[in-house]
This record gives sequence, structure tokens and C-alpha cells, in this order.
Amino acid sequence: MAVNLRALQHLTDQLTAIVTVADDGGSSGRLRREFDILPPGDLRMALAALCDDDPVGRTWADVLQARFTGDGPLGGHAIGNLLIAGLWQQLEDPVAGLDMVAQLLGARGRVLPMASVPLQIEADVIGLDPVAPDEISTLRGQATVASTEGEVAAVRLVPADPPARPECLEAIREADWAVLGPGSWFTSVIPHLLVPELADALVTARCRRVLTLNLSPEGETRGFSPSRHLEMLADHAPRLRIDVVLADEQTVEDDPHLESYVASLGGRLVRADVAMRDGSARHDALRLAAAYAEVMGL
Amino acid sequence: MAVNLRALQHLTDQLTAIVTVADDGGSSGRLRREFDILPPGDLRMALAALCDDDPVGRTWADVLQARFTGDGPLGGHAIGNLLIAGLWQQLEDPVAGLDMVAQLLGARGRVLPMASVPLQIEADVIGLDPVAPDEISTLRGQATVASTEGEVAAVRLVPADPPARPECLEAIREADWAVLGPGSWFTSVIPHLLVPELADALVTARCRRVLTLNLSPEGETRGFSPSRHLEMLADHAPRLRIDVVLADEQTVEDDPHLESYVASLGGRLVRADVAMRDGSARHDALRLAAAYAEVMGL
Repeated sequence: MAVNLRALQHLTDQLTAIVTVADDGGSSGRLRREFDILPPGDLRMALAALCDDDPVGRTWADVLQARFTGDGPLGGHAIGNLLIAGLWQQLEDPVAGLDMVAQLLGARGRVLPMASVPLQIEADVIGLDPVAPDEISTLRGQATVASTEGEVAAVRLVPADPPARPECLEAIREADWAVLGPGSWFTSVIPHLLVPELADALVTARCRRVLTLNLSPEGETRGFSPSRHLEMLADHAPRLRIDVVLADEQTVEDDPHLESYVASLGGRLVRADVAMRDGSARHDALRLAAAYAEVMGL
Repeated sequence: MAVNLRALQHLTDQLTAIVTVADDGGSSGRLRREFDILPPGDLRMALAALCDDDPVGRTWADVLQARFTGDGPLGGHAIGNLLIAGLWQQLEDPVAGLDMVAQLLGARGRVLPMASVPLQIEADVIGLDPVAPDEISTLRGQATVASTEGEVAAVRLVPADPPARPECLEAIREADWAVLGPGSWFTSVIPHLLVPELADALVTARCRRVLTLNLSPEGETRGFSPSRHLEMLADHAPRLRIDVVLADEQTVEDDPHLESYVASLGGRLVRADVAMRDGSARHDALRLAAAYAEVMGL
């Protein structure tokens, strides 16, 4: 997510990041349990990625991203999570609090939660029981789902019909482009499409839609081909049309069915060299920006 | 302290607040125990008092002053204390962290810790033992001393010779006026004079010195006359000369020895109407500002 936002920053100063609010692990999980608030972690990371590229902005981003050391009551908490939780307690409107952190960071863009209430992710997972390998188990919680050893077949949100933030719907309505992915497929990318109002907005908006594939399937989509990623997305959002699927050249060279899968979603496949030069399975922000610029005709 | 700083803000934009770092109660005490850092609470309060008087500055000040609710691991912590502690962990230089909070608040002035290390206050207290009412007991800790039922006879710092921050010494050297008090006499006003470098700087600087008396002796100086306050201060800082003692008219009208006590410190007594109009024992920021303006010839 962070690299994706930094790439898009090169192309526009009218960027809105719509972020999942289903994390239940680590510092965010502790804050949810203590205060029943939206998990701030993914929002904080998006804000830090959008920070102003000057020493003050970067210093604030580093501070908000840092975690308290030790194993006392504060140990492990990201400092920015505590600031966001504090702003929320005081201001009540979560978006107003996020906008204040954005201002503090000189963020070039806005960060919004994808729903107004904290969410849980629930997954149907196959292969967890060695005795009955075809049995479907239900797992609950983003941290649990993201680290499952089984094969995820479907994900759901709890509650199933959470209210979206109106600011998100407006941003989608006014966007020229919506960018989905890359990211943890079941716990970060697909969840947006499970918020009914967000899915509707994405389906009906006049914007074009680009879906960026992951470089290397890991964790929850271990062993999934690029085509399988598209299949899972389509299973969870059957009405969604995609204009462009952006994929790394190397990553998709062994997937003969990908072109036809992309066509079945209504789009075209764009292959580009978007990985880090050092060969690691991470996107390079500038290469990704160049690919988006080409895709978007900028 | 907050009212004093707001009063002085009316007179100058070159204000430096030098703040005690001996608090060991509440949120600050918990942070000292968890991270062995300077107690941030009094620094946070001074910063909030200096916030820019616009909606953004006031909102940040309110957020930093607010405390997490509930009785979980974060419950009771002032949000600003956590932010300051986080900045300190990340930046290491405590003054750099305070300057960042000052910038966030649009603070008109600077807030500095009176020493580079966390301090404890130790007090000799009389009258705690009903069987031996003249016996001297030693109490340790600002929270304990400030709430003692006994009579404080003397206070010390632990460690006894803490290093001052060079920024404080420079601010005193360059000041036109140094303002001492009002505030908790033994735990907030006198401690500055027990930091040897700070006391030296205050004794030798070219600035003039005004000491503002409390409106109503409470807690640790319950029952002390204004003269007695001066006596205790002189006991702890025998070389310090005071140019002006500023006192509320009503508060000092029954203290016949005050003028001569003030003269023995080398100064003159200025009586002014500096209390709130509603009769409560609190200073009024604008009345106090008017009195300072007169004292300082502004």
C-alpha cells in the first residue's frame, strides 16, 4: 500500500486512499479491544506514506510509524495509532481526526476508512483438518485469516453490511481512476468490494478502474496464479468491470489464461516492469508510477 | 502556570517557559516508570497554554490535554504525554521533541525542561507523627510532597546536582525579565532554584526578576503567610535577589511584614488586583498581564 500511494503521488495531488478497517492484530487489535474503535494501523501507514517529502513531514511520519519499545503497557503500540485514537476520542468524527494527522504530516492526499464501524474478516478455509482435507473451516479475524496455512475459498465481512463513509462514496464518484491492489488479496484488496455501498459506487462510477496484481503470492494466496487472483476477486464482486489489469512482466509470464480472464472482466492486460531492481518481490514506486502514467495516459 | 503563560503571551512573543521535571504522579509517573524518561505532563501543559489562538491550535491543545478514558492500559494517560514520549524515543533530544510539539500547536514561545534528567523531590516535613509532632520526616516524590498533611520545612532534588539544559541557561542569559511563580511553592517554584546551574544563571544574569505570589496558600503551603513564602524561597536560594514581588491586593492585606521581607530580597512590593473577578482563588490572565506590563514598564 505504501509503495502504491507513493507511486500515485507522482501523478496527482488529488489522491484519496480508502483503507480497510478490519485489522485485529498487534497495536490496532489492542486499541480495538480497549476502546472499540476503528483499527488505526492501516490508516496510519497510508498517512505516513503520503507525508510531505521535506524534513518536517518525514520526521513526523517516522515518529508516527515508530513503536514504543519494551513490554510494558505501551510497548509495541505505534505512536501514530495512539495519536489517532486520541484524536478520535476527542473529536468523535474519525475523518476529522485523520484530516488533522494529514495536515500535521503535510500529506498530499486524503486517507479515509472504508467503513464507519470496525470490521472483522471471516473466511472459509479448506485444508486445515488433515483428516478431512476438503472440509471447510470458518476463521474469524484478519490476523488469523492472513496467516492461515489453509486455502482461502471465500471471505466475508462481519457485520455483513457496514455503512460506508460518505466521503469515500463522493471520492469514488468524482475520481478519474480507481486503483485496486496490490496487497493482501483476501484481507486488504477484496474487503473493499464487500462493503455494499463501496462496491455499488465502484460499479456505477464514471471512473476507470485499474487493478494492480501482486508480485508474488504469499500468505493467504500462496500458490494462487495471477488468473486465480482475478477469479477470486470476480467471485466476490461479480458486477465489477476492470478497465486495466496491470501486472509485472516476470510475474505473469507463466500464466497462459490471464489474458482471457482479464478480457472476461471487460479489460485489457498491461504488462510492465514494476518490480524493484534488486530482484526482491516488491514494487518500485517510480517504475509503478511510470506504468500508471502510461495506463492513465498522463 | 497556564494562566501565567497566557498572561505573558500578551506581552511578548519571545517567551521561554522553563518547567519542572519532578512529577512522579499520574500519567507522567507511569511513563517515568515504563521508560525512565522526563515526566512530560508539566511540559505538555505549558505547551498547551502557549498554543496558537486559532481553531487548529486550540483543537490540538485540547487533544493533547485530553486523557484516554477507561481503566485499561491507556486509561488516564494524557494524549500529549504519549506523543511527547514517542517523540523522545524517536528523536532522543528532548528539546527537539518539545519544539516539534510547539510547532504543531503554533505555540508562541518555547517550553524547556529545567533539567536534562528526571528528578525526584525530597522534603523534610514536620508534624506527621502525632506522638512526636516536632519530628522531621523525609518524604520522597512530588505527588507525595504536594499532598502532605505535614508542614514542609525544606525540599531537595534527587539527584542533588542535575545538569541543566544549555537552552535554559541561554534563555536566562538573554532575557529581559525572569518571572518566578505563582505555583506550588515547594514542588514547582523552588525546585528551579535547586538546579545549581539554573540558580547561578538566575543570580548572575542581567535580567530583572519578578516573583509572583500565590493567591491562596493551599496543599503544601497551607497556613503560610505571603512573608513565609518569601522566607522559604530565600532559605532555598540565599543569593537570589528579586526586583519586584507582585502580589494580589486582597491576599497580602493582612501581612504587615511583607514589605520588609521584600526589601530584604532587594526588591519592591507591587500590589495589584490580579485575581479572577468571580472571587475564586485563581489569577485572571488579562489582569495579570496588565500588572506585568506595569511592572515591566511595557
